[in-house]
Amino acid sequence: MGTEFLKIKECDEAIDIIQNLFNENLKPESEEILVSEAYGRVLFEDVYSRMDFPPFDKALKDGFAILSSDSFGASEESPNTLDVIDFLEAGSTTDKKVQAGKCIEISTGAAMPEGSDAVLMVEYAEKDDGKVNLLTTVTPTQDVAKKGSDIEEGKLILKKGDFLNPGKIGVLLSQGFESIEVFKKPSVGILSSGNEITLQGEELDYGKIYDVNGGMIKNDAISCGADAKFLGIMHDDYDEVKEKITKSLEEVDILFCSGGTSAGLGDVLKHVLDELGEVHIHGISVQPGKPTIVGVINGKLVIGLPGNPVSALMIFNAFVAEPLTRLAGIDKDFELKVIKGKITKRIHSQVGRMQYQLVRVDEDKIQPIFKDSGAIFSLSTADGYVKIPKLVELVDEGEEVEVYLFN
Amino acid sequence: MGTEFLKIKECDEAIDIIQNLFNENLKPESEEILVSEAYGRVLFEDVYSRMDFPPFDKALKDGFAILSSDSFGASEESPNTLDVIDFLEAGSTTDKKVQAGKCIEISTGAAMPEGSDAVLMVEYAEKDDGKVNLLTTVTPTQDVAKKGSDIEEGKLILKKGDFLNPGKIGVLLSQGFESIEVFKKPSVGILSSGNEITLQGEELDYGKIYDVNGGMIKNDAISCGADAKFLGIMHDDYDEVKEKITKSLEEVDILFCSGGTSAGLGDVLKHVLDELGEVHIHGISVQPGKPTIVGVINGKLVIGLPGNPVSALMIFNAFVAEPLTRLAGIDKDFELKVIKGKITKRIHSQVGRMQYQLVRVDEDKIQPIFKDSGAIFSLSTADGYVKIPKLVELVDEGEEVEVYLFN
Repeated sequence: MGTEFLKIKECDEAIDIIQNLFNENLKPESEEILVSEAYGRVLFEDVYSRMDFPPFDKALKDGFAILSSDSFGASEESPNTLDVIDFLEAGSTTDKKVQAGKCIEISTGAAMPEGSDAVLMVEYAEKDDGKVNLLTTVTPTQDVAKKGSDIEEGKLILKKGDFLNPGKIGVLLSQGFESIEVFKKPSVGILSSGNEITLQGEELDYGKIYDVNGGMIKNDAISCGADAKFLGIMHDDYDEVKEKITKSLEEVDILFCSGGTSAGLGDVLKHVLDELGEVHIHGISVQPGKPTIVGVINGKLVIGLPGNPVSALMIFNAFVAEPLTRLAGIDKDFELKVIKGKITKRIHSQVGRMQYQLVRVDEDKIQPIFKDSGAIFSLSTADGYVKIPKLVELVDEGEEVEVYLFN
Repeated sequence: MGTEFLKIKECDEAIDIIQNLFNENLKPESEEILVSEAYGRVLFEDVYSRMDFPPFDKALKDGFAILSSDSFGASEESPNTLDVIDFLEAGSTTDKKVQAGKCIEISTGAAMPEGSDAVLMVEYAEKDDGKVNLLTTVTPTQDVAKKGSDIEEGKLILKKGDFLNPGKIGVLLSQGFESIEVFKKPSVGILSSGNEITLQGEELDYGKIYDVNGGMIKNDAISCGADAKFLGIMHDDYDEVKEKITKSLEEVDILFCSGGTSAGLGDVLKHVLDELGEVHIHGISVQPGKPTIVGVINGKLVIGLPGNPVSALMIFNAFVAEPLTRLAGIDKDFELKVIKGKITKRIHSQVGRMQYQLVRVDEDKIQPIFKDSGAIFSLSTADGYVKIPKLVELVDEGEEVEVYLFN
């Protein structure tokens, strides 16, 4: 294997390549989970009803289960009188049968007793000592939900790709589903690299900084529906990088590596990917984020992000968030994540490559955040970024721009 | 205690009462969690920087740490030459000092060595056998991020109420925060009631139905940021309801009860609430959902939802979702959850109480879902509901309506 001569990719080209690598290498998988814990998950299968619902002719009101013909002609002035032979609560059954002249008192939700075909509401009845006076006429099936009237057995009730909101969870529960197949969360790992990187909770020696990308990219992957974990820190050393990547790919399907110093890791990663698999992108014509590298090892994706956290976050959002979210089965409308507004300050851009400008959104005012790309604190207030095409030299104050919002 | 004479409440009145009961009885609490697992949580405290960032003067480029005055006058035609006395990678330190005529080769991210004040990029240098030719002039601090230039120690970096997205998580990690105080998820429990209610996974006897509200309302509460659990099924029996409620309130702060048959539980619940605490709402002038009951027991909220799942879902969304979400610290813009469109079919409404009409949203077309309110399968496709005010008799085809979207 090996890929020595890769030209730097334009942004659109890189987006297509990464989406294709996802499609070719990573098939959506399913897992079975409890319906009662399914909020926010996505159905992996069409779901058909397993039974009629309601599962029996059901009383919709408190009253009397009667033969409707027994009520014909009844009115307040001239009630019909029936014998009350039993009382049925929701959930109970009876051996007794309704027939002409006889009825059974019934609660909402109870199964209609044999022989009855309507409920006469309690408001239109006078009960007295084993008898009831019907004060009105009811029609057949009145205040009865017929078995299967809501749904019949064997009907399509939910579709593959449906987002499980509380209402759809309710539908599944009503059919007795205890568990269900949903899209499995894509398995993502993050390795940080760099000799200067220190873990939170440890003493920070002079010249060192705390790791940001491990935890930040993990959480960004989680926001895309992935099951993501931080896999630790490695030095920019060929053997160590090779060993850590090999080991990590036993655990995860998509591996992000990001270096404290992009140059250091970039070179090592390129060589490791060349040895173990194939490099598909080595450099994207974008500022910041040029050193991005994307490779495949045995059907698994390895993505080297810039070490700079601001760059890493933008590259993740611009190139990986969408295919990752789709792999998770989430049919999110990415257009919804783009909003428009007017830029409040002129932005200068270097002609020759796409520039991503970090911005804050204040209603329809888009404020560029000008700091060098190492300035992590710009992320305290950043809402997303604006794309400035490679041939555009400046975006003037007041121009309308599109903002790609972060998760 | 006791509250015998409660008038049925108008919708707006009920919304205010419920919000006030939340405010008076349930204070937002905090809990400490790992920053690396904080996605989607909400900060409970203002956060100040604990150290300068960068924590040292940092090289922004690969090159040579020099005294900038040593480069003055240098050009490709007439380079200045310096001794290279050491090499500094990111994360390492040196005892050697830069002084006139001497420099230290340096990697991006490394701490600037003592005596140096600028980086001359490797692109403008020719290194050869312990010496380097500087091919350009650099100014003081060029390609150096000064200690504290991004943020100084003791500055406000994130605010109470901030939603922790990946970028803000990155900011916290850069400052070495391992854990952080966030809003604690409100503690919610759900009891289902009714003799006809059966748990998923069990055999369904004739006349019985599966429990829907337990799992559905649990997931709706989770979607509002709560920590919610299903606490089981109880019979509509005074002693059992009293015991289950008492026991549940040892575990949770907000308890939802919902009956298979609303009539049955409603009465029992009213009496239990009267005995143990105080009923604040007994009936809301809304269709469906009239039997809703809200009480307080020892500073904890007990909310009786209609047994019918469609009604329960609408009542939850219309009256409880907003205060619950706010208690979770989420400053969600509830107006964003309202969209407008044109109704595709005439809706008739009963004058005298507010009607909630279930609808499906198809872009700007709002399709009413006409089924009796027991029809759980309408939730397969429902996106939300339209409110029809109490004095409105019909909404005509083509009229613009506001849809309150479900979570």
